[in-house]
Amino acid sequence: MLVVMKAQATPEEIQAVCDHIEQLGFRPHPLPGAQRTAIGITGNQGEVNRGNLESLSGVAEVIRVSKAYKLASRDVKEEDTVVRFANGATIGGRNLAVIAGPCSIESREQAFAIAEQVAAAGAQFFRGGAYKPRTSPYAFQGLGLEALRIMAEIRDRFGLRIVTEAIDAESLDLVAEWADLIQIGARNMQNFSLLKRVGRMRKPVLIKRGMSATLEEFLMAAEYVMSEGNYEVILCERGVRTFADHARNTLDLSIIPALQHVSHLPILVDPSHGTGRRDSVLPMARAGIAAGADGIIVEVHNHPESAFSDGPQSLFPEQFATMMNEIEQIAPVVGRSLARGATSKITAEASGK
Amino acid sequence: MLVVMKAQATPEEIQAVCDHIEQLGFRPHPLPGAQRTAIGITGNQGEVNRGNLESLSGVAEVIRVSKAYKLASRDVKEEDTVVRFANGATIGGRNLAVIAGPCSIESREQAFAIAEQVAAAGAQFFRGGAYKPRTSPYAFQGLGLEALRIMAEIRDRFGLRIVTEAIDAESLDLVAEWADLIQIGARNMQNFSLLKRVGRMRKPVLIKRGMSATLEEFLMAAEYVMSEGNYEVILCERGVRTFADHARNTLDLSIIPALQHVSHLPILVDPSHGTGRRDSVLPMARAGIAAGADGIIVEVHNHPESAFSDGPQSLFPEQFATMMNEIEQIAPVVGRSLARGATSKITAEASGK
Amino acid sequence: MLVVMKAQATPEEIQAVCDHIEQLGFRPHPLPGAQRTAIGITGNQGEVNRGNLESLSGVAEVIRVSKAYKLASRDVKEEDTVVRFANGATIGGRNLAVIAGPCSIESREQAFAIAEQVAAAGAQFFRGGAYKPRTSPYAFQGLGLEALRIMAEIRDRFGLRIVTEAIDAESLDLVAEWADLIQIGARNMQNFSLLKRVGRMRKPVLIKRGMSATLEEFLMAAEYVMSEGNYEVILCERGVRTFADHARNTLDLSIIPALQHVSHLPILVDPSHGTGRRDSVLPMARAGIAAGADGIIVEVHNHPESAFSDGPQSLFPEQFATMMNEIEQIAPVVGRSLARGATSKITAEASGK
Amino acid sequence: MLVVMKAQATPEEIQAVCDHIEQLGFRPHPLPGAQRTAIGITGNQGEVNRGNLESLSGVAEVIRVSKAYKLASRDVKEEDTVVRFANGATIGGRNLAVIAGPCSIESREQAFAIAEQVAAAGAQFFRGGAYKPRTSPYAFQGLGLEALRIMAEIRDRFGLRIVTEAIDAESLDLVAEWADLIQIGARNMQNFSLLKRVGRMRKPVLIKRGMSATLEEFLMAAEYVMSEGNYEVILCERGVRTFADHARNTLDLSIIPALQHVSHLPILVDPSHGTGRRDSVLPMARAGIAAGADGIIVEVHNHPESAFSDGPQSLFPEQFATMMNEIEQIAPVVGRSLARGATSKITAEASGK
Repeated sequence: MLVVMKAQATPEEIQAVCDHIEQLGFRPHPLPGAQRTAIGITGNQGEVNRGNLESLSGVAEVIRVSKAYKLASRDVKEEDTVVRFANGATIGGRNLAVIAGPCSIESREQAFAIAEQVAAAGAQFFRGGAYKPRTSPYAFQGLGLEALRIMAEIRDRFGLRIVTEAIDAESLDLVAEWADLIQIGARNMQNFSLLKRVGRMRKPVLIKRGMSATLEEFLMAAEYVMSEGNYEVILCERGVRTFADHARNTLDLSIIPALQHVSHLPILVDPSHGTGRRDSVLPMARAGIAAGADGIIVEVHNHPESAFSDGPQSLFPEQFATMMNEIEQIAPVVGRSLARGATSKITAEASGK
Repeated sequence: MLVVMKAQATPEEIQAVCDHIEQLGFRPHPLPGAQRTAIGITGNQGEVNRGNLESLSGVAEVIRVSKAYKLASRDVKEEDTVVRFANGATIGGRNLAVIAGPCSIESREQAFAIAEQVAAAGAQFFRGGAYKPRTSPYAFQGLGLEALRIMAEIRDRFGLRIVTEAIDAESLDLVAEWADLIQIGARNMQNFSLLKRVGRMRKPVLIKRGMSATLEEFLMAAEYVMSEGNYEVILCERGVRTFADHARNTLDLSIIPALQHVSHLPILVDPSHGTGRRDSVLPMARAGIAAGADGIIVEVHNHPESAFSDGPQSLFPEQFATMMNEIEQIAPVVGRSLARGATSKITAEASGK
Repeated sequence: MLVVMKAQATPEEIQAVCDHIEQLGFRPHPLPGAQRTAIGITGNQGEVNRGNLESLSGVAEVIRVSKAYKLASRDVKEEDTVVRFANGATIGGRNLAVIAGPCSIESREQAFAIAEQVAAAGAQFFRGGAYKPRTSPYAFQGLGLEALRIMAEIRDRFGLRIVTEAIDAESLDLVAEWADLIQIGARNMQNFSLLKRVGRMRKPVLIKRGMSATLEEFLMAAEYVMSEGNYEVILCERGVRTFADHARNTLDLSIIPALQHVSHLPILVDPSHGTGRRDSVLPMARAGIAAGADGIIVEVHNHPESAFSDGPQSLFPEQFATMMNEIEQIAPVVGRSLARGATSKITAEASGK
Repeated sequence: MLVVMKAQATPEEIQAVCDHIEQLGFRPHPLPGAQRTAIGITGNQGEVNRGNLESLSGVAEVIRVSKAYKLASRDVKEEDTVVRFANGATIGGRNLAVIAGPCSIESREQAFAIAEQVAAAGAQFFRGGAYKPRTSPYAFQGLGLEALRIMAEIRDRFGLRIVTEAIDAESLDLVAEWADLIQIGARNMQNFSLLKRVGRMRKPVLIKRGMSATLEEFLMAAEYVMSEGNYEVILCERGVRTFADHARNTLDLSIIPALQHVSHLPILVDPSHGTGRRDSVLPMARAGIAAGADGIIVEVHNHPESAFSDGPQSLFPEQFATMMNEIEQIAPVVGRSLARGATSKITAEASGK
């Protein structure tokens, strides 16, 4: 159910409607739009009495939302969601966002070397694994808190926003404390307890599509987070499981226009996990932007051949710089522009560009 | 790495080898066999020095295990694993195991009614959801602790062993306390934090195959549990995601012989989730047993039409009784017999069968 | 559209209705049932005028068939189709049918050796490739007419019915002339020109499911054949393409009950192509029968290690004999019995069984 | 096996090597390159004696080709294949090729109206179905020869090259006579008899990827054609079957860089069949070009709502014009330019652009 407020409704009227919804035993989700505010109603205790709501002051209309996902749906919020970060970076909206960095934080030296290079090439976000969900219990599981501390230093030094994955309640509390954007991995896309806990955080979250998730299941994962009050959700296509064996996964770019048709949430593309092959990352990054994605998340490593994980799919730093230039050229075709980070600009000026 | 002890090795010699492995910074996993004990070695701190181990008293040979999964592999333990329960029930080995019950525990009355009927038909295990991993945050999420208490009563009343799903750390602690067999659902098959936590329990665990998990990933989930010292792992095929639309999932029975070729762990089949269609459950339950499975886990409901979840795939109690008779007839073809619960026998006698 | 005749309708009345349908520019398909005859109407020139038909003598009712497949549907023919062969063998109905033989006919010696052994074990049908649809143009493409001649000799010598694949118009004409059952392979399941040509033959046809065919597409392939007047169509599940890598294909046995629910056509299972692994063929043959299939088609070779094609999935003759015994034991559970060929019975008597 | 000729080898020397290969019972495939000619050797009668070949005049070296596909491999021909057409149009190489038109030719009026509009927007190739491989025998099967004649008129009137599908031997002979580019549809990608027959034509062929074809199977289909001497083969990605339900198929763009890595053949993208949704066609056309494809094949209809087939995925003519502009802008990023047809240029001049 969705309460659409009148354009001229006052904050007090909006608050009064929210209070009334709570008194009925439901949860109100006020969603401000450009013209007017809508208030989503969730809760599984039964049907809301529409009549009472329609008679409240400032209410324009009450609408039943028929899709399984509600807060994630364009029926509830027509305008694209733009997630804003401290340094002015955004995900969603006109600017393309680029998140780059190594699969795993392996050491302070490795992380700093890569961060310097991706910042110079214009990335605004730095990714690096601190807690790694590895298929084998015997494989490297990440440096944990030490990695989070290294990334916090990188934020201070290079002005990059930090993105890293949380894999359980304990790591989530730490990631939420140290990072700017919490990543939920493909294997946890239906870890509903974790999603609810992320929903109680007040920090943006990036949800990767599960390996065999349908569009609806993907949006329902977002809905789990949003139903708890965290509306800063970013989606990420990273390839699905099929019979095809020429790539590690099959990157399903056609989900981008399909998602944009029904949801207001931003959607990124991960061509590194999506293909698992370095020689396919640039083509698929370009393709992702051309298909209308809001940005790219990509693995970059200064020594991919000796990376602790995902070496074969990591770009060399110079390839990443090429990728940035290529997607910058495609951006205007889809009504976008590439936002380059502050460090990048300085570097560009210094180099006389 | 695997240390194979001599047939006549003493418990003291075995213990000495384990102590030595721990001193090297690795973890020993003593795995008793019919002829002799093998000791698996895990830990990701590097290579074990084979020479030192071979010179220890009672050691027959030291073998490198090349597969990604080690403790789950037949290379490490040749004999089939048989998991034993308090009332004499087993999973694995000669007797077929049958787990039956509703998708969700909805009330004491509903649960008791179904339990009575599945017990009468010969089930030894009762399943019922207390914590439900639902695609929608707005769907019924289970009765939680109340459901666990109801199932504990059912154990006392009908002598059935209790199987229920844990979905996170909190529910796991409760499930481990109240149930006999901890279920890890398909969506959590690669929730590695949860798997490690289950590995530290000393209670049998049933792991359902993820919707797009390969055979190796499935066994690696088992390996996560075993690497922490819990060796009572049961696998369960429950269908995978494909293009086919005549059933909710595609039940992949050919994984049964493929798993049995490389692993000693028991494997059950879930024809309810595997097909999602009541009219396909009996055929696929029969097929699962004919393919060599160690048993069946199946949803039974006394009023499927009004079930809180999974109604369309739940058997009526009389269909379940038919299923028991049919798999009992197939059992001898695959060198098995159907173990019926104590209640069943009494009922059968009472009814003059 | 379907015209259901009255139980007491005379052959003349049935013929008159067929004539009338033809005059309207459509094609009548008289389908005799146990109680009464139904007449399917096909043709894509528009809508049939129901009123005229209902007023004809002997007509009970005129029904619109809403499914895409019509002649293949149980709505049009409720009773199971049983395809009958010259030596009394049948496919469909109470008796299980078994088709066995090598992937390719390699020589007269090889074919006779295998035929003798599968006949002795009780097969009623002999399969062998004369025209091979190989992925590589450089691979063995079959002996062609020579193979057909060898198989005709085998029919005479062992009383086995001959099954072999047609891959194009030329081979179809020859196969229809020399064999008893025309096989259309998975790669040609949507070769509609070939299907129509088969439809104009008056010889039974076995259609293998395409590697990514849905249930509806599978039945539409049958419909192509039936719409041309050949109603002796047998379906065959042989595995589909999925991400799973433990077998060459994923054998989708749950299509058996799903097909039987909507169609009257017989359905066989091919566990050889369905798994590609010899050690999985017997388990999946048993599972197929347990799931309700009407029989098995399986590859048997006397020297699999030197077979021209498909060696790794071919059974040794003694494994085939075991398979026959196992499915014979499962047959009564699904209301069936295994029909063994005449040669087999003689052999069995001679050997004092 | 591959014979690489010296750069200065004469035509007589090349011919002598070809003659020698034929005498050995194999088939020579002379493949001219920018620097020198290579001669592929095919035939399945066994091993070629390398020594004899190496001693022939003009031979630089003899190389064993280990991949299953040989003539389609970059090992045999390093430079990209460019297929050239009468009016100067090309597929492969620097210029992007665009093929547009309706799914089916429905009438002269419909075809001309669409042809005029796609020509005006700059298409160089016109597609239209004359022989339709329809899932249902009762669906519109195409106008056949009449459609071919209409398209020949369109070639004369608008200077467009004609692309249409052949579905069997009969239609192939006609298509080869009337069209400029023979299309082999996804359902016939492994119709090996048809592929061989196309291989004996001397006309370019477009092969669409089968719905569950791997990269190797796709190239083996090309190899079938090439092994018969027709080297003008163009590949086309058109989506594969997966569990995903937000589009009719899953367009697998990552096969583009993967194919280009191993093969010299051009590769087009079909976003119409690849998505089945009009609102996804433009995004995926842009993405295809950005991923490095050599062009686009797309369905355009002037009245999609009343199209005989594939209406929901057909672009309106004005959307097609937008698509042309968008891919023209992306072209330089991937080192390409969009070749617009002659009609288009005139129109553009006339309209004062």
